[in-house]
Amino acid sequence: MAQNIYDDPGFFAGYSQLPRQVHGLPGAPEWPAIRAMLPELAGKHVVDLGCGFGWVSRWMREQGASSVLGIDLSQNMIARAKTMTEDPDITYEIADLETLELSKSTFDLAYSALTFHYIRDFDRLARMLYRTLVPEGHLVFTIEHPIYMAPTHARWGQDEDGRKSWPINRYFIEGERRTDWYVKGVLKYHRTMGTTLNALIGAGFALRHVEEFCPTREQIKAMPELADELERPMMLLVSAQR
Amino acid sequence: MAQNIYDDPGFFAGYSQLPRQVHGLPGAPEWPAIRAMLPELAGKHVVDLGCGFGWVSRWMREQGASSVLGIDLSQNMIARAKTMTEDPDITYEIADLETLELSKSTFDLAYSALTFHYIRDFDRLARMLYRTLVPEGHLVFTIEHPIYMAPTHARWGQDEDGRKSWPINRYFIEGERRTDWYVKGVLKYHRTMGTTLNALIGAGFALRHVEEFCPTREQIKAMPELADELERPMMLLVSAQR
Repeated sequence: MAQNIYDDPGFFAGYSQLPRQVHGLPGAPEWPAIRAMLPELAGKHVVDLGCGFGWVSRWMREQGASSVLGIDLSQNMIARAKTMTEDPDITYEIADLETLELSKSTFDLAYSALTFHYIRDFDRLARMLYRTLVPEGHLVFTIEHPIYMAPTHARWGQDEDGRKSWPINRYFIEGERRTDWYVKGVLKYHRTMGTTLNALIGAGFALRHVEEFCPTREQIKAMPELADELERPMMLLVSAQR
Repeated sequence: MAQNIYDDPGFFAGYSQLPRQVHGLPGAPEWPAIRAMLPELAGKHVVDLGCGFGWVSRWMREQGASSVLGIDLSQNMIARAKTMTEDPDITYEIADLETLELSKSTFDLAYSALTFHYIRDFDRLARMLYRTLVPEGHLVFTIEHPIYMAPTHARWGQDEDGRKSWPINRYFIEGERRTDWYVKGVLKYHRTMGTTLNALIGAGFALRHVEEFCPTREQIKAMPELADELERPMMLLVSAQR
């Protein structure tokens, strides 16, 4: 079973204060890039994997999705998500993506934000998602970029000119990475870019778009610290199609 | 026109001594991985882009390819390649990949090793290669990995444990990179992983396999300095299909 940090009270208290949790989608700088990768939503059946407080689940209904199933491992997250909507076509369920089986040829879109890097067995998940999509159905997801996640010491350094640099190592040593984020020892799984993309291709998906989040000039103007994100890729965004 | 370092006498003298030029394919540690990505060659018409001394062109004919067209910008390389074969079904031509136009639906396989990172306009090249392949024809190529190429100072550092680390910066600042390699100011073009893959998808290709070269245990045993290549990706290998 995937580690459930989100039901740790210390984690939840901190996490709930993140701009993207307080302000919803506008708090996430990668949102415009994700949105551009999403298919037309009107009339679609969507599953939102790792839905958290359900910001995207609700937004998708506003865009005309016929139904949204939000899934999360965290009781805390699902409990709060439920308080935030009375829409009968949004359903929330607690489930572990390591073992979840969704019914075949059911969804037009599987969406997931910053969740799959917590999953040990991505091959299994990719194959399950392929089966649960209808033919030509879409998978759109984001994960922490493997360059961001690989190093033993994942923090900024400087090059000899004083320019920020991100020191990579252990790129080809896949598997567990532990990090401290509100709580100690948050467990993530590092996979190379090749491993992630080949898992999708191997499951039968056609890759439609591969993007590494890069802030726009306007975003950097509004939030100057985002300029650091020009130096190294922090987030990977993928669109694939059954 | 792409920069032609290969006809600089100083460059050519040094480059000719590289293990992969002296010993041919067995001198290239990534060769087993490339070979595993190649389609069946018997009866196929192949173009080898940036063929150099023609090691792979000749090997492909030995594997049963019907014809190989080897293309390189360098007169030196092509002149030497011509001295190394009398096979009438291998043809060598001097041409610049920035402007080369191959005839439509002609080749079953377009192959290129460590050449496309010298090309400024990869979008144009990808579209031209799509057109010159027959339906279901393959494109298999390697380039320097963008993580290897991005930094201002592309050389090893150390993390706080003394472990080698590769300091990335300027990842999202695409374009020219100058490096000293036998001669000063060798010109390469940095593109993010997303840019390269989306250029292929945009040209119409289906991505079949994306690999980042990682030495095997046996290779590290035979050549211990290859262990450094576990720390950061140096080379990107891509297989795509029309």
